Amino acid sequence: MGKQQKNAISPTRAEDYPEWYQQVIKASDMAERSPVRGCMVIKPWGYTLWENIVAHMDGMFKATGVKNAYFPLFIPVSFLEKEAEHVEGFAKECAVVTHHRLEQGDGGKLIPGGPLTEPLVVRPTSETIIGDSFSKWVSSYRDLPLLINQWANVVRWEMRTRIFLRTSEFLWQEGHTAHATNAEAIERTGMMLEVYARMVEDYLAMPVIKGRKTAAERFPGAVDTLCIEAMMQDRKALQAGTSHFLGQNFAKASNIRFQTENETEEFAWTTSWGTSTRMIGGMIMTHADDDGVIMPPRVAPAHVVLLPIFRTPEDRRQVMDYVQKLAAALREITYCHRPVVVEIDDRDIGGARGWDWIKKGIPLRVEIGPRDMAQDSVFVGRRDHAHRDKKAMPREAFVAEVTAILDDIQNNLFQRALLVREENTRQVDNRKDFYAWFTPKNMEKPEIHGGFALSHWCGDRACEATIKEDLNVTIRCIPLDASAESGQCICCGKPSERRVVFAKAY
Amino acid sequence: MGKQQKNAISPTRAEDYPEWYQQVIKASDMAERSPVRGCMVIKPWGYTLWENIVAHMDGMFKATGVKNAYFPLFIPVSFLEKEAEHVEGFAKECAVVTHHRLEQGDGGKLIPGGPLTEPLVVRPTSETIIGDSFSKWVSSYRDLPLLINQWANVVRWEMRTRIFLRTSEFLWQEGHTAHATNAEAIERTGMMLEVYARMVEDYLAMPVIKGRKTAAERFPGAVDTLCIEAMMQDRKALQAGTSHFLGQNFAKASNIRFQTENETEEFAWTTSWGTSTRMIGGMIMTHADDDGVIMPPRVAPAHVVLLPIFRTPEDRRQVMDYVQKLAAALREITYCHRPVVVEIDDRDIGGARGWDWIKKGIPLRVEIGPRDMAQDSVFVGRRDHAHRDKKAMPREAFVAEVTAILDDIQNNLFQRALLVREENTRQVDNRKDFYAWFTPKNMEKPEIHGGFALSHWCGDRACEATIKEDLNVTIRCIPLDASAESGQCICCGKPSERRVVFAKAY
Ligand SMILES: [Zn+2]
Ligand SMILES: [Zn+2]
Repeated sequence: MGKQQKNAISPTRAEDYPEWYQQVIKASDMAERSPVRGCMVIKPWGYTLWENIVAHMDGMFKATGVKNAYFPLFIPVSFLEKEAEHVEGFAKECAVVTHHRLEQGDGGKLIPGGPLTEPLVVRPTSETIIGDSFSKWVSSYRDLPLLINQWANVVRWEMRTRIFLRTSEFLWQEGHTAHATNAEAIERTGMMLEVYARMVEDYLAMPVIKGRKTAAERFPGAVDTLCIEAMMQDRKALQAGTSHFLGQNFAKASNIRFQTENETEEFAWTTSWGTSTRMIGGMIMTHADDDGVIMPPRVAPAHVVLLPIFRTPEDRRQVMDYVQKLAAALREITYCHRPVVVEIDDRDIGGARGWDWIKKGIPLRVEIGPRDMAQDSVFVGRRDHAHRDKKAMPREAFVAEVTAILDDIQNNLFQRALLVREENTRQVDNRKDFYAWFTPKNMEKPEIHGGFALSHWCGDRACEATIKEDLNVTIRCIPLDASAESGQCICCGKPSERRVVFAKAY
Repeated sequence: MGKQQKNAISPTRAEDYPEWYQQVIKASDMAERSPVRGCMVIKPWGYTLWENIVAHMDGMFKATGVKNAYFPLFIPVSFLEKEAEHVEGFAKECAVVTHHRLEQGDGGKLIPGGPLTEPLVVRPTSETIIGDSFSKWVSSYRDLPLLINQWANVVRWEMRTRIFLRTSEFLWQEGHTAHATNAEAIERTGMMLEVYARMVEDYLAMPVIKGRKTAAERFPGAVDTLCIEAMMQDRKALQAGTSHFLGQNFAKASNIRFQTENETEEFAWTTSWGTSTRMIGGMIMTHADDDGVIMPPRVAPAHVVLLPIFRTPEDRRQVMDYVQKLAAALREITYCHRPVVVEIDDRDIGGARGWDWIKKGIPLRVEIGPRDMAQDSVFVGRRDHAHRDKKAMPREAFVAEVTAILDDIQNNLFQRALLVREENTRQVDNRKDFYAWFTPKNMEKPEIHGGFALSHWCGDRACEATIKEDLNVTIRCIPLDASAESGQCICCGKPSERRVVFAKAY
């Protein structure tokens, strides 16, 4: 970092938000593009974050009685033919396996051989194949509820990709449950949305609005789609999780029937719910600043980096000894169900070392040189504070307070994000204002603009479509806690009973 | 279960071992065939076992400094063309993606559309694509060692499949490390074999022989392949894990170069090591009996099932209350780093209930009826004992001793398996005896025969090949702890310096 340069990431968010995002990821060492079109390599710093997210969420799933299972990577094409709506949704752009062998062609080339009688699709979701299993596993009310989740990779062929946000292959979980009653399935739909909201708010420090999709935005085949929506720093919405109540539609398509206690036969009531590595993209766009990623401590791949400072070999020996002891003391402490994770970086690369960790977003940087050691103190930088804003602390106090500091960072990140959302959320009641707010001044290269508009909507699909076409603004959700309020539709002026959340979206 | 029937699984091991294996899996509810040829559905009871295995092994990996990452599912065909040996090994039978779209064909049929310019292979291993990343990530000795592991699904097209043992898709981990020195890579190869041996012996309760593969059995491209070999109950060997020292071969193929401390440039020294869901097949074939699966307690999906017995609703209320309290008390106890996992099965299905849990292999079955409750005692059956061999215990004593009982079962399973191996391992020094031992009496439907022959081998590939061709017996390994001993090759009679392990194998 030259002294002239103010920020580690160029361009800044204000200068070019999409490019800033790519540069933040590159600088963080979390993931990178792979030689396979549209696929990413998730590097250890990014993958450990994912492991932490998975561990917390998996625990929450299991606490509600869900069990994990694993279904085949491949889906026979005939399974997709059964569900016309499904094909429209997912299966159009997918990886199709047509051969099961490579053969020697001319000049050392390998060419596909052994054509399959029926092509296979690499799962864009396991919905149909899980439905097939459910139809075999369920025969009586005694088999219900069936509460299954799968952690897996899925593939949806994408032409324009962005790491974590939209890639041809990504990692996700999909939950599928079958119930004996309508009411129980509806309850489960809400329960899983609540799990997602807790995960995203309490661990990823991203405030979310819990809501319901309009019919137009609903998952194909769902009776009701619940979602959580978060605001990114460019004021666009990102859907961080969805939970669908499928009524008996999915059971009818997959033939999931059961004998009731009264010995009648009924179709089961089902739900499905999913989240993916896309959450990581949302987390980055919520917290990262012009110096790079900021990891919320509760899911951070590591919590503290110790940065020993020395000139002479004698210094080095003493400082490293001190640093090792400090690391050991910190690792004895539990923070959010795991030991405090400490990195020691003794590379001799000057100021670039500290900046590396800033860009990676580690919550705490601790410098320790001979003078600090002499005073038994450490020099601490918090990632949620400016990079020069470091402070000396007695070593003992640091060890005693480290979990409190981490919690403070966690809370601070959440409050900051909440403030961004509040500052960029408006009640808009006038169509002209609405259109002005969602129209950038610079159409060529749109500046950050708009936000969440809480506006009235009459419920008419045509109004929703008009706004989408005119502004690329959609109804993100009808908030679950929206109170009844009379008003006039922002589009047509007809009567409306409640406000909904309009925004541009990822 | 009718009273006539002695065992829950038909056929028995002695009657038809391969069919017994299929029936054991079916009865255990661990996994089943899927509608996709050669692929399996891993059901919750089987998947939870895998999760437990993964958790323990992953912890061991991380304790040695390994970090997890994730690489793309797809491999460009050009990557495989680079490595001729590799193609021979893996890529012949694989799933080839040739299109990225489904289009409407005649009569509602979906047909592949959007042909790819370069076909993609679904990873049979990520070796080549990880090599490509390593070549970018490594430039200086400071970047070494690079210690990476991936948990993922892989696909190798199989014509004849058996659940867990050989399926077209399976779950596995592959570790890849790069080092600055020969010695360090060799050390890592041994270290990871040791991790595997600990995992398989201490958790899966399967005794293994640690050894080295002969040149003929070595992994293509490896300088040295270490392995652990276990004996199944049909006396065949199953390779439960391998660790390869690749010298600089892999680094040369993938162009993994680094600048040394002396500013010269060198190829890195690499290792790779892997295990898979195949381990589960091995675990089943080691411990299961003619009543079904037996789960080693340390990895069991659940430890204890409580089986309440009642006739009247009043009984039911009281017994269930008692059972719930007992479950809560047991769940407070930690066994092998997790709370004791308790299932409560109150289904009213008579004797089939207990047999279900026997077939699933849960370590402890606890019956509780009004009479037991009146005496504050429980009626306990251990899965490693005969199914009728149950004993009454005071409830308090059971709670106090449950972890000791589980450990006793764990040890008992290991000792039993060790005994089977010892009883069926022989020093064979005479070619005629060797051939007789490995030749079934009934060639049509071979009975269980043979075992591990500790015999001398001159080191000549031709002798190894002759025995393989004549008997389908291979050298499983040269044991790492084999002491030097002069003898004569079992095949050609020439001098030999040590005994090796010969066996038929999965
Ligand atoms: Zn309207
Ligand atoms: Zn010989």
